[in-house]
Amino acid sequence: MSKLTDVPKRILIGRALRSDRLGETLLPKRVALPVFASDPLSSVAYAPGEVLLVLSIAGLSAYHFSPWIAVAVVVLMFTVVASYRQNVHAYPSGGGDYEVATTNLGPKAGLTVASALLVDYVLTVAVSISSGIENLGSAIPFVVENKVACAVGVIVLLTLMNLRGVRESGTLFAIPTYVFVAGVFLMIAWGAFRGGVLGDDMRAPTADFEIKPEHPGLAGFALLFLLLRAFSSGCAALTGVEAISNGVPGFRKPKSRNAATTLALMGLLAVTMFCGIIALAGATDVRMAENPAKDLVHNGVPLGPDYVQDPVISQVAEAVFGHGSLLFVVLAAATALVLFLAANTAYNGFPLLGSILAQDRYLPRQLHTRGDRLAFSNGIVLLAGAAALLVSIYGADSTRLIQLYIVGVFVSFTLSQTGMVRHWNRLLGTEKDPAERRRMVRSRAINAFGAFFTGLVLVVVLLTKFTHGAWVALLGMCIFYATMTAIRRHYDRVADEIAAPDTPSEDTVRPSRVHSVVLVSKVHRPALRALAYAKLLRSDTLEALTVNVDAEETRALREEWERRGIDVPLKVLDSPYREVTRPVIEYVKSLRAQSPRDVVSVIIPEYVVGHWYEHFLHNQSALRLKGRLLFTPGVMVTSVPYQLESSEAAKLRARKRQDWAAPGSARRGPAERAKDTSPRT
Amino acid sequence: MSKLTDVPKRILIGRALRSDRLGETLLPKRVALPVFASDPLSSVAYAPGEVLLVLSIAGLSAYHFSPWIAVAVVVLMFTVVASYRQNVHAYPSGGGDYEVATTNLGPKAGLTVASALLVDYVLTVAVSISSGIENLGSAIPFVVENKVACAVGVIVLLTLMNLRGVRESGTLFAIPTYVFVAGVFLMIAWGAFRGGVLGDDMRAPTADFEIKPEHPGLAGFALLFLLLRAFSSGCAALTGVEAISNGVPGFRKPKSRNAATTLALMGLLAVTMFCGIIALAGATDVRMAENPAKDLVHNGVPLGPDYVQDPVISQVAEAVFGHGSLLFVVLAAATALVLFLAANTAYNGFPLLGSILAQDRYLPRQLHTRGDRLAFSNGIVLLAGAAALLVSIYGADSTRLIQLYIVGVFVSFTLSQTGMVRHWNRLLGTEKDPAERRRMVRSRAINAFGAFFTGLVLVVVLLTKFTHGAWVALLGMCIFYATMTAIRRHYDRVADEIAAPDTPSEDTVRPSRVHSVVLVSKVHRPALRALAYAKLLRSDTLEALTVNVDAEETRALREEWERRGIDVPLKVLDSPYREVTRPVIEYVKSLRAQSPRDVVSVIIPEYVVGHWYEHFLHNQSALRLKGRLLFTPGVMVTSVPYQLESSEAAKLRARKRQDWAAPGSARRGPAERAKDTSPRT
Repeated sequence: MSKLTDVPKRILIGRALRSDRLGETLLPKRVALPVFASDPLSSVAYAPGEVLLVLSIAGLSAYHFSPWIAVAVVVLMFTVVASYRQNVHAYPSGGGDYEVATTNLGPKAGLTVASALLVDYVLTVAVSISSGIENLGSAIPFVVENKVACAVGVIVLLTLMNLRGVRESGTLFAIPTYVFVAGVFLMIAWGAFRGGVLGDDMRAPTADFEIKPEHPGLAGFALLFLLLRAFSSGCAALTGVEAISNGVPGFRKPKSRNAATTLALMGLLAVTMFCGIIALAGATDVRMAENPAKDLVHNGVPLGPDYVQDPVISQVAEAVFGHGSLLFVVLAAATALVLFLAANTAYNGFPLLGSILAQDRYLPRQLHTRGDRLAFSNGIVLLAGAAALLVSIYGADSTRLIQLYIVGVFVSFTLSQTGMVRHWNRLLGTEKDPAERRRMVRSRAINAFGAFFTGLVLVVVLLTKFTHGAWVALLGMCIFYATMTAIRRHYDRVADEIAAPDTPSEDTVRPSRVHSVVLVSKVHRPALRALAYAKLLRSDTLEALTVNVDAEETRALREEWERRGIDVPLKVLDSPYREVTRPVIEYVKSLRAQSPRDVVSVIIPEYVVGHWYEHFLHNQSALRLKGRLLFTPGVMVTSVPYQLESSEAAKLRARKRQDWAAPGSARRGPAERAKDTSPRT
Repeated sequence: MSKLTDVPKRILIGRALRSDRLGETLLPKRVALPVFASDPLSSVAYAPGEVLLVLSIAGLSAYHFSPWIAVAVVVLMFTVVASYRQNVHAYPSGGGDYEVATTNLGPKAGLTVASALLVDYVLTVAVSISSGIENLGSAIPFVVENKVACAVGVIVLLTLMNLRGVRESGTLFAIPTYVFVAGVFLMIAWGAFRGGVLGDDMRAPTADFEIKPEHPGLAGFALLFLLLRAFSSGCAALTGVEAISNGVPGFRKPKSRNAATTLALMGLLAVTMFCGIIALAGATDVRMAENPAKDLVHNGVPLGPDYVQDPVISQVAEAVFGHGSLLFVVLAAATALVLFLAANTAYNGFPLLGSILAQDRYLPRQLHTRGDRLAFSNGIVLLAGAAALLVSIYGADSTRLIQLYIVGVFVSFTLSQTGMVRHWNRLLGTEKDPAERRRMVRSRAINAFGAFFTGLVLVVVLLTKFTHGAWVALLGMCIFYATMTAIRRHYDRVADEIAAPDTPSEDTVRPSRVHSVVLVSKVHRPALRALAYAKLLRSDTLEALTVNVDAEETRALREEWERRGIDVPLKVLDSPYREVTRPVIEYVKSLRAQSPRDVVSVIIPEYVVGHWYEHFLHNQSALRLKGRLLFTPGVMVTSVPYQLESSEAAKLRARKRQDWAAPGSARRGPAERAKDTSPRT
């Protein structure tokens, strides 16, 4: 019952949207791009900086490796995009990596992918919001001075928005995303023009700092390891690429082709922006360090703990556009907004994945209802709580949080691509058409290379990041995996227990007779209604039952009973301690003992009330009695509701709760009308 | 559902006692005295000190008024005891002041008394435990240095004990109470012997201090006011006297006479101890002040905030027995223990009064079950929470808490005695026997004097204590009064709404037919059982209903249905969004719309599980569906339980919860077997 929280919720979250207003909208490419790509595109706001940060460990001289790392990231990006274009064509149902891995590699691989994705969603929220706060902080210092509070505030805001059921509107996503992309391209173009044509000397605000390397003169294997670590950090730019493969049903037709085109476009934009920013960072002499307080030195003096290191993108923007210029502020705001939208995609993906997992009985069954408000709310609150916890623990420091990221993404990449290879192998086993076979062989080659490359990156990420925080993400995955396995095992055990036997057994043998017992305490409308309904059911015996908790009231009841000439016998049970439950249970058991093959039907008049506090005043004895009766075999319990006037309010509330737009509905597309399999008996 | 808390509760509170072990014990006088009198007797531990405290405001010279105040308290005590001896004879049912006031002065007076008593119970806990901690602290300094923490700790301990259902065992109460009484009497006798016979100069530890009066040389009306305030504080000795009048049914026969005797004995012991301690305090030159840090001066220097003022009883004990002597420590321990037992009496009284109020529908109905564990638990936790709050706010300072006390007691005394006067007036209106009339006239005179005197004290207490804290107690009474009035009004309104009309109406007209709908999702044992039971009920139409959330599963269900040749038609509802609730509700409404005078019976197979976490995995859809169905008129909802193997554990737990000894059962006496008013139809 969510009634207790209804009033504050209403105030905070507002009235729910009606689902029919949602319509049967499908996303055109120009809207799909911002809806799906805010996550991968926004990562260029932090990925280049992470590369420089890691390189700084070996000193400024290591910065000249940054273009090579950018090249490696670009190659990886093209590989992943090419691979996922195959997924999108092969699995247009939107099941995504979970479906691909489960179908081709078995349920354990699928569950591993699912665990990885769930962890990944939590980290998307934590990393994107932390980075958004840092970008906002480069324009508004107050924000970065209260980093954790602001980050948690944004999480709370997003949570409330999603609980309210705000639809992912195309416009809402499109404007900041396009402003961000346009801003970054303008910055790259203007920077290239100023540097290349005008010959201006653009200098980042940190250009005058020196870097005190933690490990100067690193070489050989150690240098290689460092470069691999820098590459791992740069791979953050790839997070969210897989989102489109979950969202194919949301595209306009031809769905798969449009999705594949959007994917390619997104990849192209992302790598251009990534490389442009890396190049500009080199040109404007951006200086970043893992521990800026200690390792950044200005005029021979370390900058100290008060120094706040701005993100690369904002330092570059400052150098190109000028400090405090309008374009600088607009880009900072757009960057922050796109990062918050990226976080929002996790709010859409998490409950959707939950609903798919619930269908496969890895999560509680009730989550599988698509658009069930309560189920989605639980998912949203769980996601927000975990993200807020991480943000608080890691002080909303995107650099530290990124160490946890990426592992999940690459687990899911690798398993998904491996699954695709088996998918093509299976199809090739039956396909005869040579043209089709050639296409399949090509696709398989792409996926095989994708699997190999992402698998290699996964190993690199694990090796270079494990002690820096990746173990936390792995632990999270293990917890999800274990919980979901346990839930599945429980459901399987229960399914075995309740499986219908083929031969008639105790459960299927028809019991012989039914004794109906109507519980009454007074002769009032609810009791009369319950009696009237009970009579309709024509059971073998029917009697009214009352518990004598007050001799006076019992006498009045019996008199009233006779006065009205109610034609149902009234049975009175003694209860010296004024209990209700025990005498009734004992009476029902005695009935069962007399004729074990019969069934007892206990009919309870129930008050339907409208306010949560009224629950404390009514039905408590009935509820507890019902709870105990259910443990007695051979009993069924019937509630005959009597709607009190106040129940109208609750009815309206319940109706409103039902008309609610679930997060993620836009990206999943409208539900297809299931074919009616019944002959309408 | 208390399932969530079951495991920690079991660990903390232990296994519940079986109620049949409680037996049908009745209390002999020697056991009844400690059970009922720990509250009034224990108050001599703080009442004398409070008198001296107040007097000190006018300086040391005002101390010579203390014997006069003691005399006034003694007169009041005799009056109250004499009055309550009349109550005990007139109302042997144990209804106490609430019953007396309601019967004779009407429900508003009764509710006022009830509110006063509820507040009083909370204060009994707060004051007794604070004072107990102070007494314990005179022997163990650590305790008084962590006053609030220790006091809250004792509250938690008592709460756990009472939640566990510890019976008020005679022995448990008798030993510390008798040790305490014996110790105080020994102290008085030994003090008198040393002072009077040996001529020893016994000096209290504070004897050398001087008092800096806040208002030196007070005279006239101001002095009178101060004396009245001191008297009000001394009246704390009377709290708990009324307890015996609630406990008459717990006494051995002749109940009323034994109760009256116990009452008299208790009064005699209390006044002797009170006067003895006041006298010894005078003889040993005890010095107490309201603000000891400032107003107590030693060698011209104020004692400062580190000084801890020990209670009078421990100062006197130190003077008489010697500091650190065995008798001193034993008496301190016994005093603390008796005070904790006094607090425990409130744990017994509060839920009992609640159960009486629930019978009169001033509190939720379910509380009226005597010995219902859940209801009592709620009362106990409420009491403990309120007391802990007060203790925390007032820093476990008994002097400050006592300002709030007494108001409630005297409200209840005054109204009860006034009610008794009307009681005798009513009886005198019909009684003819002159001997009986004479007895009644004498009783009436006693009660009238009691009413007058306690009323006067109430006015004095209100005047002298209002600003010192009595307003808090009055506010608490108003809150209880308002809440209970609102609950009663709600019940009355609902009773009007559901009152059965004398002429047949919509509710009483028998509906014509019943359509039964069995919800199925799969062909498994629970579904087969539900179908078998539904067939037994012989409704006019019967069909099985399934919601098509997964086309594959639905097809499998239909095939299985046909394969088994189940002779109930299967209806399939579409649900594109995989919802369950909405399609079913709409279908039921459409059935109702087709034939509005018919009734729809929805039969739901329900899983009965054993662990709280299993609730998240089962029945959630069914529960929500049921919740929505109840709002639809003309529907009844039947649960057909299927007991999973794991439900055995829960069944055992539920059974154990039922066999539980309620607090206060000893003082209420065994329940009388209610006469069976039914002809066993």
